[in-house]
Amino acid sequence: MLVFDSDYTDGAHPLVLKALVDSNKEILGTYTLDKYCKEASKKIKKACNKKNAKIYFTVGGTQTNSIVIGSILKSYQGVISVNTGHINLHEAGAIEHDGHKVLALEGKDGKLEANVLKTYLEGFYQDESFEHMVFPGLVYISYPTEYGTLYSKEELSAIKQVCNEYHLPLFIDGARLAYALGVENSLSLADIANSCDVFYIGGTKCGALCGEAIVFTNTKLCDHFFTCIKQKGALLAKGRLLGVQFNALFTDNLYINIGKQSVLKAKLLKDGLKAKGYKFFIDSPTNLIFVIVKNTKIEEIKDKISFSVWQEYDSEHKVIRLATSHGTRVDAIDAALKLL
Amino acid sequence: MLVFDSDYTDGAHPLVLKALVDSNKEILGTYTLDKYCKEASKKIKKACNKKNAKIYFTVGGTQTNSIVIGSILKSYQGVISVNTGHINLHEAGAIEHDGHKVLALEGKDGKLEANVLKTYLEGFYQDESFEHMVFPGLVYISYPTEYGTLYSKEELSAIKQVCNEYHLPLFIDGARLAYALGVENSLSLADIANSCDVFYIGGTKCGALCGEAIVFTNTKLCDHFFTCIKQKGALLAKGRLLGVQFNALFTDNLYINIGKQSVLKAKLLKDGLKAKGYKFFIDSPTNLIFVIVKNTKIEEIKDKISFSVWQEYDSEHKVIRLATSHGTRVDAIDAALKLL
Amino acid sequence: MLVFDSDYTDGAHPLVLKALVDSNKEILGTYTLDKYCKEASKKIKKACNKKNAKIYFTVGGTQTNSIVIGSILKSYQGVISVNTGHINLHEAGAIEHDGHKVLALEGKDGKLEANVLKTYLEGFYQDESFEHMVFPGLVYISYPTEYGTLYSKEELSAIKQVCNEYHLPLFIDGARLAYALGVENSLSLADIANSCDVFYIGGTKCGALCGEAIVFTNTKLCDHFFTCIKQKGALLAKGRLLGVQFNALFTDNLYINIGKQSVLKAKLLKDGLKAKGYKFFIDSPTNLIFVIVKNTKIEEIKDKISFSVWQEYDSEHKVIRLATSHGTRVDAIDAALKLL
Amino acid sequence: MLVFDSDYTDGAHPLVLKALVDSNKEILGTYTLDKYCKEASKKIKKACNKKNAKIYFTVGGTQTNSIVIGSILKSYQGVISVNTGHINLHEAGAIEHDGHKVLALEGKDGKLEANVLKTYLEGFYQDESFEHMVFPGLVYISYPTEYGTLYSKEELSAIKQVCNEYHLPLFIDGARLAYALGVENSLSLADIANSCDVFYIGGTKCGALCGEAIVFTNTKLCDHFFTCIKQKGALLAKGRLLGVQFNALFTDNLYINIGKQSVLKAKLLKDGLKAKGYKFFIDSPTNLIFVIVKNTKIEEIKDKISFSVWQEYDSEHKVIRLATSHGTRVDAIDAALKLL
Repeated sequence: MLVFDSDYTDGAHPLVLKALVDSNKEILGTYTLDKYCKEASKKIKKACNKKNAKIYFTVGGTQTNSIVIGSILKSYQGVISVNTGHINLHEAGAIEHDGHKVLALEGKDGKLEANVLKTYLEGFYQDESFEHMVFPGLVYISYPTEYGTLYSKEELSAIKQVCNEYHLPLFIDGARLAYALGVENSLSLADIANSCDVFYIGGTKCGALCGEAIVFTNTKLCDHFFTCIKQKGALLAKGRLLGVQFNALFTDNLYINIGKQSVLKAKLLKDGLKAKGYKFFIDSPTNLIFVIVKNTKIEEIKDKISFSVWQEYDSEHKVIRLATSHGTRVDAIDAALKLL
Repeated sequence: MLVFDSDYTDGAHPLVLKALVDSNKEILGTYTLDKYCKEASKKIKKACNKKNAKIYFTVGGTQTNSIVIGSILKSYQGVISVNTGHINLHEAGAIEHDGHKVLALEGKDGKLEANVLKTYLEGFYQDESFEHMVFPGLVYISYPTEYGTLYSKEELSAIKQVCNEYHLPLFIDGARLAYALGVENSLSLADIANSCDVFYIGGTKCGALCGEAIVFTNTKLCDHFFTCIKQKGALLAKGRLLGVQFNALFTDNLYINIGKQSVLKAKLLKDGLKAKGYKFFIDSPTNLIFVIVKNTKIEEIKDKISFSVWQEYDSEHKVIRLATSHGTRVDAIDAALKLL
Repeated sequence: MLVFDSDYTDGAHPLVLKALVDSNKEILGTYTLDKYCKEASKKIKKACNKKNAKIYFTVGGTQTNSIVIGSILKSYQGVISVNTGHINLHEAGAIEHDGHKVLALEGKDGKLEANVLKTYLEGFYQDESFEHMVFPGLVYISYPTEYGTLYSKEELSAIKQVCNEYHLPLFIDGARLAYALGVENSLSLADIANSCDVFYIGGTKCGALCGEAIVFTNTKLCDHFFTCIKQKGALLAKGRLLGVQFNALFTDNLYINIGKQSVLKAKLLKDGLKAKGYKFFIDSPTNLIFVIVKNTKIEEIKDKISFSVWQEYDSEHKVIRLATSHGTRVDAIDAALKLL
Repeated sequence: MLVFDSDYTDGAHPLVLKALVDSNKEILGTYTLDKYCKEASKKIKKACNKKNAKIYFTVGGTQTNSIVIGSILKSYQGVISVNTGHINLHEAGAIEHDGHKVLALEGKDGKLEANVLKTYLEGFYQDESFEHMVFPGLVYISYPTEYGTLYSKEELSAIKQVCNEYHLPLFIDGARLAYALGVENSLSLADIANSCDVFYIGGTKCGALCGEAIVFTNTKLCDHFFTCIKQKGALLAKGRLLGVQFNALFTDNLYINIGKQSVLKAKLLKDGLKAKGYKFFIDSPTNLIFVIVKNTKIEEIKDKISFSVWQEYDSEHKVIRLATSHGTRVDAIDAALKLL
């Protein structure tokens, strides 16, 4: 079976695994207060060029979104997201379970557009009933988006400007951040850190076994955040598991390199598909490929290669999603291209 | 000032007020366990032709929606509503605050269409990620809708059939139910009771000072509902306030008569507007009128008559909402028609 | 049946009812934005000697506690209360349903003692695990307490001092406030307003049909409180019902007079019981009487007089609670004394 | 520094680590649907002698308690626990954040007593206000308790009997279950499985890097539990991390052996302390030792050995908690005994 359905079917990147093995015998502090968490925090702050940022380590993406959003919002506020945002569709209602509405706006290629955001906010405050409605309290975007697309520096900056005008913090979900950083000429980690109030650096989908690193550049937003993490059941007793992995990921550019390699592999696959005449549902520069495939073809190959069926395209075609990761082998790509 | 912005600018209907005055000196049971609540329950069950229904009294609409929906849904479930549904827009996120997502579907003239519901449900269970998504657990519709429109018997029945197919209870928000019952040849209370699992009979907007009567025809859904009411802060210590009013409303057809009179007045106003050449945004048979008015006209009259500005129509027009109620006077309608 | 089980078996005080009748034909603003709510707010602020206070009207006590506490607390915080506090025992878990722990401390005669509070707070911050625990975020007391007892000025001041030291707001539940104000030489409304950050003036149990008036003297705590009220389903569409009643209660000292009369009647009852040799479980100066009665006596009279069975006293006695209110008649007291 | 403050300062047990290393290159299913999770489930069911049980894997203890309790309770119900229970004290209000009250009963040596439970339940339903109170919906106990103590088979059975009488499920928190299984002549895993409706087998504190395995023996309680796990942010994308570890822990009795070894080391330490004249606060047979130490001694050694300060004993002594685990070395115990 060729596996292309997600970027989390692999184990850890070998260097991440090695770090776990090497540190295993050490007796360490608990609850992410160990020396590896400290060291990883230092490296992350340096990579972000934000020495005053506050770093917290959690286990998974849905959890992280829920804690960050829930701890920032007041009870009468909701979070703005595009309707294809992960928090709106694929987190089983975690945000609502925590008491907050996801205020879903129409997106474009998975992205929030600054003018759509602005129009919504203007409309909200012009509505004579706005005090009977859910107040916008935070803007959520993902980078890369759920469609593998990226914001340009200008796009991010335009969103941030609208946020500032309405005193709304901006939160970036970086579950797959490595695959954005790995795209040539894309934004750096410091650019990301500069463009928002809080974001997270995804580990689980980018070479770790688990783990996300939350970066608060606006440290007014993380009041007693440690206890919030505990309350949501996200505080690892053996926090070392997160510290050791992130320390490895932020040593010798490993995190970015994982992104680069995976993006290159995705390009190989994409180029191959293009050469075979396939059309793409969306033009993604990262590790996710959304390709339009005949239903008959899908039936033919589905037992030999795994992928996500994303949506119907027309009565004869579906959009499937293929993902590459640090563990994707070139011979698997060749085999996939033969099959498809 | 002519007042047409809502159906709750009046006091109580005189007969409701009289009942409050007449009963005031009595010493009565508390927490809706008094004799008037019992008597009102009996009359409501009779009017619904459901002798085994369970009746509960609460104070207001948002509260009622939140308690009913919150007590029926399991933690992993959300409630389906059209996007213009009151719970989705104008209840300040009460449902989400209680932990549940409103699964908003596109509506038509404020109504949920059975085929849209079915398509959604089919799609949900066909989605390979459905276990990562919010499960539909209940269907919410309002009757009349927020646009004053009504479902036909066939439409309701088609919705219920889809609900049954997917084992979803159907909940009808009857905040303005009197204005539906007051429309000639429309559904009876017994029809409504037959068409769903639970609904409420709105008092606040239909002649009472406050109060809603919840009718569970499917009594499996109201396990320990009394305590749920208490927990949500909706249990009146002097529950008599609700019992006395609903007892009056369900004596000598008062509730339906209030609806009839208000609908007649709305018709008077609508006919007058039609005669003057006004166009309507939507064709509502009940007490709400959505009329398209020039912005310049709005500016001219807005200090002499009150109304709700519903939405932009085009750059030169807006949709305004006019409402009638038991207290609307015919001379006020005449004056309004002169102004408009 | 003689009725002494609570102070909410009556209807409205005649003057409150009259105000409802007199205003019933008026067309008024909605959602507590009407002229009566404004007028009542003005009078309350004057009676509190707090011209900058913010006043909000809600319907019932549990609801009010839940909204005030829920809107002040952050997600990682809980509310401190004595273990006999209404929020801890008799509100069906409304505070917890809203996401917050009630941090229950041992009380004395229903009261929180400043030194108990201080010891708890000191202990909390000395505990090496305090970041894994629920942070105290607010102190709740009731005045009168659930046992009808009152704090002295010094006691209140000592509590407030501890609160200040730990930056905790103080919230006073005044569900039965009239009965405290009606006690000779007790604290004035202005004293209460001076001693805390927010409190509410109970209407339901003090002569109204329903309604509580929340007074924020610390106006930093009520950010978007109107929307919080709406979200919790506590915003009355016909807010006039609350405004008219509170305007009447705060005209010509009615609120305090209701308290005074009820307290006098309680004294009459208490003196009669004392004369008959009854012992009291607690010495309450307000409208609640906790008297120790033989089980055999209880059996004998329970079909002729209603009361609350509060708790076991010993194997042969129980503590019962008798309550007086504005409607308690002197002949009923005489009859009760004959029975008991 | 000698480290005795907890059983989670170690890394993984070498065999657990080896399993992670050995499986790392495999491409595996996601979200705990991989072959290791399946294999581990099979082994756990066999060890429990419950072939129809349902097994779910989560990451940490607080999270697990919150998901299990939150998914079983209805909105009007709370969970019964002794006041020293982990959920009541050291989970930052996770249960309340999820909407439920912890109904705390007085415990003895960390244990719930069947008669205390029964008295509480009888009292609850005899209270005339019980419908205004939080209904008991579930009983929570920990085994071993937070004080390292164990229930006998008879004690567990007596609790279960009371639970059955009141139709309450029983949930056992087994965060440190290995240390109970490791005590000679104590209950087996099958005994535990037989004595309750749901329990979890702690991994984090018993030799894994993270992970807990939930065992539902009463499978009526786990309706859509997978989605509940997802909603609470506890579903690992790389679920293999849990499956691989638990598969290792349940191969060749590793889990029980880890318990046995740690308990033996605790005994070594305890015997040494006894020999030196130390008194114990509580008689714990497992891996936690609660010993009474002079404050002056604590000051003297606190920079050389780590421990938890549990509580004051008297003005001159404190209770400290020492913990052993799979990684505790005998020479560290000797050194600790020299210091103390």
